[in-house]
Amino acid sequence: MITTEQLQKDFSSGLSTFLSNYPESNLFGPIRYLLSLGGKRIRPLLALSVSNAEGATSEDAMPASLAVEFFHNFTLMHDDIMDNAPLRRGKVTVHEKYSKNAAILSGDALFTAAYQALELANPEHLPQLLRLLNKTSMEVCEGQQLDLDYESLGDVTQEMYLEMIRLKTSVLLAASCSMGAICAGADDERVQLWYEFGEKLGLAFQLQDDYLDTFGLEKSTGKKVGGDILADKKTFLHIHSSAVKELPSASGLSDDDKIDLIKTAMKDRGSDLAAKNKMTAYSENARKALELLDLDSSLNTWFEELLFSVTQRVS
Amino acid sequence: MITTEQLQKDFSSGLSTFLSNYPESNLFGPIRYLLSLGGKRIRPLLALSVSNAEGATSEDAMPASLAVEFFHNFTLMHDDIMDNAPLRRGKVTVHEKYSKNAAILSGDALFTAAYQALELANPEHLPQLLRLLNKTSMEVCEGQQLDLDYESLGDVTQEMYLEMIRLKTSVLLAASCSMGAICAGADDERVQLWYEFGEKLGLAFQLQDDYLDTFGLEKSTGKKVGGDILADKKTFLHIHSSAVKELPSASGLSDDDKIDLIKTAMKDRGSDLAAKNKMTAYSENARKALELLDLDSSLNTWFEELLFSVTQRVS
Repeated sequence: MITTEQLQKDFSSGLSTFLSNYPESNLFGPIRYLLSLGGKRIRPLLALSVSNAEGATSEDAMPASLAVEFFHNFTLMHDDIMDNAPLRRGKVTVHEKYSKNAAILSGDALFTAAYQALELANPEHLPQLLRLLNKTSMEVCEGQQLDLDYESLGDVTQEMYLEMIRLKTSVLLAASCSMGAICAGADDERVQLWYEFGEKLGLAFQLQDDYLDTFGLEKSTGKKVGGDILADKKTFLHIHSSAVKELPSASGLSDDDKIDLIKTAMKDRGSDLAAKNKMTAYSENARKALELLDLDSSLNTWFEELLFSVTQRVS
Repeated sequence: MITTEQLQKDFSSGLSTFLSNYPESNLFGPIRYLLSLGGKRIRPLLALSVSNAEGATSEDAMPASLAVEFFHNFTLMHDDIMDNAPLRRGKVTVHEKYSKNAAILSGDALFTAAYQALELANPEHLPQLLRLLNKTSMEVCEGQQLDLDYESLGDVTQEMYLEMIRLKTSVLLAASCSMGAICAGADDERVQLWYEFGEKLGLAFQLQDDYLDTFGLEKSTGKKVGGDILADKKTFLHIHSSAVKELPSASGLSDDDKIDLIKTAMKDRGSDLAAKNKMTAYSENARKALELLDLDSSLNTWFEELLFSVTQRVS
């Protein structure tokens, strides 16, 4: 198995080359800015590593890895407008740095760039790649719509929440894996197993995100914990706790006191453990897909470690 | 040649069938609303008529005609947010009827739908269709960016303006023709000639749009004339007039008086005629491309009449 560092280097180099085709215009300024902020780059890493596991090169999987990273960043640009978010990756968001119009329009261009990345693919793989990117894009839009809808909806169940994060987050991780496999020429069954792996990994990833937002340590995550609590966000933790017993009222309390109060209530109701258990269950499902893929030992270890790093991560 | 009415019927039916695959969710409400407002449907009509002229059926060209109509409506949804437009096709705009967030998100879904329409295409034609839709999309974004940039730019030349409307409007009409030709299996030379035809038709179309906004009759256009004048929009008429002699100041005047004053000044400077001449020149270029396409007499007449209807239209 090629090293993670090498895959990341391959992606950086492919990204630079691809972006150099675009002009230095006002349209691409916000795109270059957002992409320069980095981030975990987990989606392209998945596409490249799966392609590698299926016996192909990073170059073969570049269309997939660029497409998913561009698509992901496009959703960030538009979601940050919708969520009125001031910061992204610790830096000011595109709509704050430039303007809302710039974030809308450059987001549209970045969305287009995702489809332009597919032009690099083997024409034989193109119909399958296009279908999957399209389906994923529609599902991610549906997920964001549900997220917005749920803000004003009284009764959000665990099931509804899990379906929302599946659409909003997991399907793109799943597509990253599958598209990497398609670029490598894998057969339909393996493409589907990689999808399973990515989808379950994505659900575990998002639950860990929720967990860290409430129970993480600021010195590890690098961001203020308790944001979801202050925003009364209906996360898994919130929904689980409320189902056990109504959460205490925090009206009149300071932010820090509200966070402390709700965190304690969530712990009392066993919601932190429930989230961990749910995440472990998804990890197990991902691991099962991996078993069925029957990879060579060193490859298998790499993906097991990736899974471990997602569920055990502290940042 | 199949009749225009039949082509429009074919499109309506293809559109209904395609839309019926989408759920009745909040995400698709704004999409169905905007598409139900109708509009000229000139882009799908071009795709279907070109396909027909190249010996193929409406069904063959449905991927192209749906893609361009979805794409066009997606740009309307997002542009109307950026332009703060209250009305579209005489009805309230999506962001006003629903919300800005809805217009952003449903616009993204509609953009995705354009690419989903390509899934219906013959896989052999897919790489070419995808490339052209991508290129067009990037150019339309660049055109909108220039349009926004020009608002705060002092010196916009005729050349800059024409390049802006070429990107913002013409390339999509050009792509509509070319994609219809690609779906019909036309060779590269003919695909390129159709592009020429559509591009020049599009430039003439947009110049006539500008002309009607200032010199049209309200009872024909069905909308208030003088909107561009009141917004101090740097249209062809404005740029031409200002280049001859600075336009008179209208400060302190009522809207109607301002419109009258500027219209008279534009006429005095020969800008109405200059716009008409420019439009005629583009029509001639479109006609030349048509000649080179060497269509059967009845087909040729149909496209000549289309060209005539664009340049002579009063609404």
